[in-house]
This record gives sequence, C-alpha cells and structure tokens, in this order.
Amino acid sequence: MDEFSLIDRYLAPLAIEGAVGLQDDAALFEGMIITKDLLVDGVHFRSCDGWGAAAQKALRVNISDLVACGARPAAFALGVVWPKAVTEEEIAAFMEGLSADCARYGLGLIGGDTTRHRADSGPLTISVTMVGPPAPEGPLRRSGAQVGDVVMVTGTIGEAVLGLKSLLGEIAPTSEGVEAYLRPRPPIDLVDALARYAHAAIDISDGLLADATHIAEASGVVLGLDAAAIPLSPSARAYAEDSGDALLSLLGGGDDYQVIATVPQDNVDPLRAAAATAQVPLTSIGEVREGAAGTVLRGGDGKEIAFGADHSPAGFRHFP
Amino acid sequence: MDEFSLIDRYLAPLAIEGAVGLQDDAALFEGMIITKDLLVDGVHFRSCDGWGAAAQKALRVNISDLVACGARPAAFALGVVWPKAVTEEEIAAFMEGLSADCARYGLGLIGGDTTRHRADSGPLTISVTMVGPPAPEGPLRRSGAQVGDVVMVTGTIGEAVLGLKSLLGEIAPTSEGVEAYLRPRPPIDLVDALARYAHAAIDISDGLLADATHIAEASGVVLGLDAAAIPLSPSARAYAEDSGDALLSLLGGGDDYQVIATVPQDNVDPLRAAAATAQVPLTSIGEVREGAAGTVLRGGDGKEIAFGADHSPAGFRHFP
Repeated sequence: MDEFSLIDRYLAPLAIEGAVGLQDDAALFEGMIITKDLLVDGVHFRSCDGWGAAAQKALRVNISDLVACGARPAAFALGVVWPKAVTEEEIAAFMEGLSADCARYGLGLIGGDTTRHRADSGPLTISVTMVGPPAPEGPLRRSGAQVGDVVMVTGTIGEAVLGLKSLLGEIAPTSEGVEAYLRPRPPIDLVDALARYAHAAIDISDGLLADATHIAEASGVVLGLDAAAIPLSPSARAYAEDSGDALLSLLGGGDDYQVIATVPQDNVDPLRAAAATAQVPLTSIGEVREGAAGTVLRGGDGKEIAFGADHSPAGFRHFP
Repeated sequence: MDEFSLIDRYLAPLAIEGAVGLQDDAALFEGMIITKDLLVDGVHFRSCDGWGAAAQKALRVNISDLVACGARPAAFALGVVWPKAVTEEEIAAFMEGLSADCARYGLGLIGGDTTRHRADSGPLTISVTMVGPPAPEGPLRRSGAQVGDVVMVTGTIGEAVLGLKSLLGEIAPTSEGVEAYLRPRPPIDLVDALARYAHAAIDISDGLLADATHIAEASGVVLGLDAAAIPLSPSARAYAEDSGDALLSLLGGGDDYQVIATVPQDNVDPLRAAAATAQVPLTSIGEVREGAAGTVLRGGDGKEIAFGADHSPAGFRHFP
C-alpha cells in the first residue's frame, strides 16, 4: 500500500458526512466554507523567488479554492514556521506581500501563530486557513457535472507552467509567465455567477487535465475536451506549437488557478454575460457526456487521448 | 526591533475588528470559534516520543484553546508535512492516535492535505485548524477579568513539566508526568459552566504564571495568587519542596493545558458544583485586584514576587 492510500484509509472514516469532497481541501461547515492549504518551500513555492510572493501564493491558492466552491473569501488564519536563519528583511518582505494581498482581496486576519525551525534546513512553511460565506445559490461541488453540460474555463492556461520553466532555466525568461506562476489571479469577480449558473466547478491547481478528471470522477461522467479550444496564452500557444508533448506539459503542469466549470446549456449565455461584465475571459472547451469517468482530449487530427484512473495525466509539477 | 515585534507590527493592522485577541490563536468569526495551532517536531513535541502522541497533542492543544474560549470542539482540518524519510509504520501510528482522539472527543474531519519535505532534515509539521460553536452564554475572553473576581484553576499543575524533564533525562522517569506531557487532558466537560460562570479564561500553555499574566494584561488588573493554594500534583508537590526555584519552574513550565478562570464571587459555588458533577478538579488560587497589570505570587513567608511586562515569568519551555 502506498503512502497516500494509507493516509486515505485512515482519514476517510474521520470525515464529517458531506463535509469533505466539496473540494479536496475545502469544506462546508455550519454555513461557512473553510479551506486549508499548507505550503512548503521547495515543494509548493520557492522562497528564492521572493518572500512576498510566497505569502501571496499561500493566500491566493486558498482564494482559488474558495472561488471554485462558490464562496467569497472573507478571513484567514495564518501559521508560519520560519527557517532558523530567517532575517528581518525576509520577514518584512513576507509581511509586505501578505498586507498587499489583504488589501487587494479585502481579507481580514482572524489569528495566527509563528514559530521557528530548530533544524538548520527546516524550510519556510506557510499554513493558511481561509473562510468565506457561500454565494446565495449555495456552494459548488466537483461532483455536480451532468451529461449535456458545457465545459468552460476561465482565463488562459499554460502561462504559469512557462513561468516555472523560465525560473528553472529550462526556457528563455518570460516575465508574464513568472508573474502568473508567482502570483496567480483566481477569477474572484465571477464567484456569484459561477455559483448561480454552473453545475460543478474546480480550480486548476494540478493541471487542466488532472482537475477536469477530478470533476469527471466525482460526477461519474466523461469530460470531452477539444484541444484546439483550450485558451492558451499567446506564449503558451507558441510553445505548444513545438509538439503534442509540449501541449500536454502545459495542460498537465498546473498552477493556473483558473476555474473549470460545467454549465447547463441554458446557462451558458447568462454566464458569458456575467463574465464579460466581470472582465473575466471565459471559454467553452468541451462537453459532458456519458461513459467511464475520465477526461478525453480530442486533437485537431481527430485522435482522442483518454485520461482517468488508468491514464493519469502528469498532474502537479514538483521541482526537480 | 526583534522578530516578534516586527511580526506584530505587520499583522496587527490586518486583524478583523474584535476577532483576534479572544485568545492568541483563537477567534470568533460568523458565530463560530476558530483556533489554529502549528506544531513542529523538536519545538512543540518530539516525534521520538511517539507519532500517535504527536497527533494527539496537535488535536488537544487546539481543544484546549477552544475550551478556554467557552467553545465545544466540533470539527477540524488537518495539514501535515511528513519528513522525507517517513515510514508507513510512522504514518500508521500517527493516524491511530488521531483516530483515537477523534472518537474520544467526538471530532469530525472537514478536510486536510499532506505533503512531504524535500529537505532531508525537514521536521514533521502538523497544522490543525479546529472549529466549534460557543456555549449559549457566548465566548470567553482573556480580557474580561474584573476586580473582586476569584481566580480558579482546573486540574493539577506541574505534572507535564515533570514529564518533559523526565523525557529529557533530567529527573527520574515518571510515567504519570510523561502521560500528562504527551497527552494533556483539557477540562472539556466544564466548557458550558465556564462560559456561564466565568468572567475571563485562558488555557495554560505557556505556564500558569505567564498565562495568568496574559489575563492580567488583557484585563488591566492584577491577579494575586497564593503559592500554597496552587493545586500541584503529588509528584509536583514533592519536587517543589526542593526549593522556591523548583516551584517556579513548575509554574513557568507550561504544557498543563488546564484552564485559569476569573469568577465573580456569586458564581464560585455554582461553578464548583458544576465541576463536581463533571468530575473536574477546581481550586481557588487567588483574587483579582486593582494595580499595574500583572501577576503577584505570594509565598508562605508573606513575600510577594511580581510578574508582568517587566518581570516576565519563564513561560514556554523550549527543548534544550
């Protein structure tokens, strides 16, 4: 049995009925949506890219979780373990980033504790718990997709992967990509409309294909996606023209922090109108259909690639 | 400026009005009390003492926070960073401890995420966010103490300090002490009565003197404590007979996870009756009076020792 099966086997029976599964790390409890992410230097971010950016990423991945649940982020609790050798300048940079995002997103702090590692190489570790009220139409689940729904995605895809590749020196520097990777911009202005018009939603943290598959598996359906319809950013499109593998690395790379939603046909136009008003790009990329739960990606050549339990996409990109 | 002043300077303006300060790491938000503690191996617990105990301590320090706020723990979210070299046996032991305490305290899991360190020496790190509804009489604050209140404490004091000293090899092994240190028992059955009858409360994590001083400073009063009245456990009493310094190391050592409450005179008898019913030891140890905020400890010889901003007690005991 591998580590994750072992953990699941123990944690599953502890879950409150209906609480877990809203998203992997978000839950509806007593009328509030609560999400919690734990980020470790070298795993989820790189402190060498900036301590302010680390704080902002920790907030924004939680904001993204709430948005995908149809909740507006309101408040958060913060836990930080500083490295043993942390400097005042690093703490100050962290706090400046945190403060800037609290102002930007209207977030209030409801508590926090900080401590320091004893071990020399203990990494900067950031724990954020964020809460917010669900939209009036109630929370969004990844399990709500229905056959016939249109699959839509906000924003553009692939820029964050290029940013990470750029930071790792694998490709020429791209400032847009780096910015997208360091400071994702979840489509917070579309929360209410998503809650009103979508059947299911998830945020893209593991990669478009992996997260589409999460919806498919939770809903027991197939998400059929047209590769040509996926809204790549201009530089991501140029990169993807290299090869099919290049495209798959963008769709499997994650960190986009955009939302995939499945939307009943009648709600597509109202959601488009809301997105236009909110100035959030919104694109139809496929449809929900019957079949063995998973994602099917259709290429321009008519070929299909299936992803699912037996064909898992690359998913979360760890640092080498 | 030191690290903590720097952190405070940045975090204070981010706090939601009235949310922080209920306790250091607990807050009332939208009708729920939320607490969050981040525990690091080698700082807050020692994984060499058992992985199950580590999980239990992480839950119980949060339970203790809620109890001191007058809230009954209901649900929690869990984040764990495993060491790089974690074994299946260690994960299993952790989960067995966690499951046992979920059953014991009636806690439900509302989400969690686990990850692994990349760095060889990255320590086991446990983040718990716990929520619970306040008792009908509303939350307890550390700032509510009033002149004339009786200062009371639950349980016995000092056993956990002896347990840690025993684990560190400083004194002869004491299994009761080790148990008290590893698996504290917050007075959860007294929550409703504390919320009904006390003016202020705090849990003892930093040490009885330090935490009494937290109430004093938040309330702008003096807590006058009789050293002889403090309910030491039998082995702690024997240890304290060595010297006055020995007593102070027990009262400054922390990890008791009992509750200090200030109780108006008229409520002392009802609270005692509730404690008897709940089988929670409850002892009067002093009184609240006017003066420059702080704690005054009266010895049997009539001498007084003052603790406060300028006379801080030892407080939290870090590992050597």
